[in-house]
Amino acid sequence: MYSRPVQVVLSKAFRLINHGPTVLISSAHNSKRNIMAAAWVCALDFDPPKITAVIDNNTYTRELIEASGTFAINVPCVAQIDLVTKLGASSGRELDGTDKFAENKLETFASKHISVPLLAGCVAWLECKVIPEPHNQNTYDLFIAEVVAAYADERVFSDGRWHFDGQDDLHTIHHVAGGTYFAAGTLLQAKT
Amino acid sequence: MYSRPVQVVLSKAFRLINHGPTVLISSAHNSKRNIMAAAWVCALDFDPPKITAVIDNNTYTRELIEASGTFAINVPCVAQIDLVTKLGASSGRELDGTDKFAENKLETFASKHISVPLLAGCVAWLECKVIPEPHNQNTYDLFIAEVVAAYADERVFSDGRWHFDGQDDLHTIHHVAGGTYFAAGTLLQAKT
Repeated sequence: MYSRPVQVVLSKAFRLINHGPTVLISSAHNSKRNIMAAAWVCALDFDPPKITAVIDNNTYTRELIEASGTFAINVPCVAQIDLVTKLGASSGRELDGTDKFAENKLETFASKHISVPLLAGCVAWLECKVIPEPHNQNTYDLFIAEVVAAYADERVFSDGRWHFDGQDDLHTIHHVAGGTYFAAGTLLQAKT
Repeated sequence: MYSRPVQVVLSKAFRLINHGPTVLISSAHNSKRNIMAAAWVCALDFDPPKITAVIDNNTYTRELIEASGTFAINVPCVAQIDLVTKLGASSGRELDGTDKFAENKLETFASKHISVPLLAGCVAWLECKVIPEPHNQNTYDLFIAEVVAAYADERVFSDGRWHFDGQDDLHTIHHVAGGTYFAAGTLLQAKT
């Protein structure tokens, strides 16, 4: 059973990815939709929040994002590492008459400010609108986007910060190589 | 005692930051040098490796980087969280007649392809040359740089991947908020 996503104030949206989790990028245009794994997503600004995302020119996701001008960042967790690895290893373009959501029987819920499916079972979500920067996109596969809404699973993120204690399956994951990830680990406090 | 940094092949340099660690950016120009904490640094390309870094327009680091066209990414570890927090909370510009390295009695070693001090005690280092992109720099505080050399502490990174087992003090750190960080945690393997 999935927790109901709770809205995150936009000024704290950067905190959802500040610690460097690997994410899933979902996208849609007309009746097509897709979802892919991405490690190269990063905060760019606080408020209004902006992010950068590297999206290879050969991906189906890129095609859908350039057509719609929108995408969503879904922050997956330990319970989903097999799925994340699978979604990172195949292209949605090659699926004949279906898509990665249907093929993997993925439960989704609707975004509010864009028209892109959000993946249930993740622990945070950011709805993004592309700020067109053709030079960056064409030269570096680098997209800049404004975050227009953000949500999190309040069991592990509330009051603007992550807290994974007692939720082993809900820690964010951080890609090492191949099918291996670090889970976000011990919380450390610097002496002030 | 610090481990001797071992060269990392450039095609694997992205792996040093792929899992989203918080880093320290060191910079120098003429006789001036500085070091600051940064969470918004991200891989951009594989080979030749490129990275993005968000560097606020008000920082002393920005001034030095724009003057020299170079900087270094130092990847700190659990043993350094007090230092990282301190380096993130003060500006090197305000130090009169000294700098953050001297003030904090930091041991450094020389970079090879740029002229920027590298911080001993970190677990990875990337020497970076800015690829000038004035629009990104002026509009978004976003820098793109090529990684021209990379090194790691081989106790925790070798053969192109991180392995922190048995090295509790050398795990990378991932900024949560204020003076708190997650250590890189349990290594998970997806079913293939």
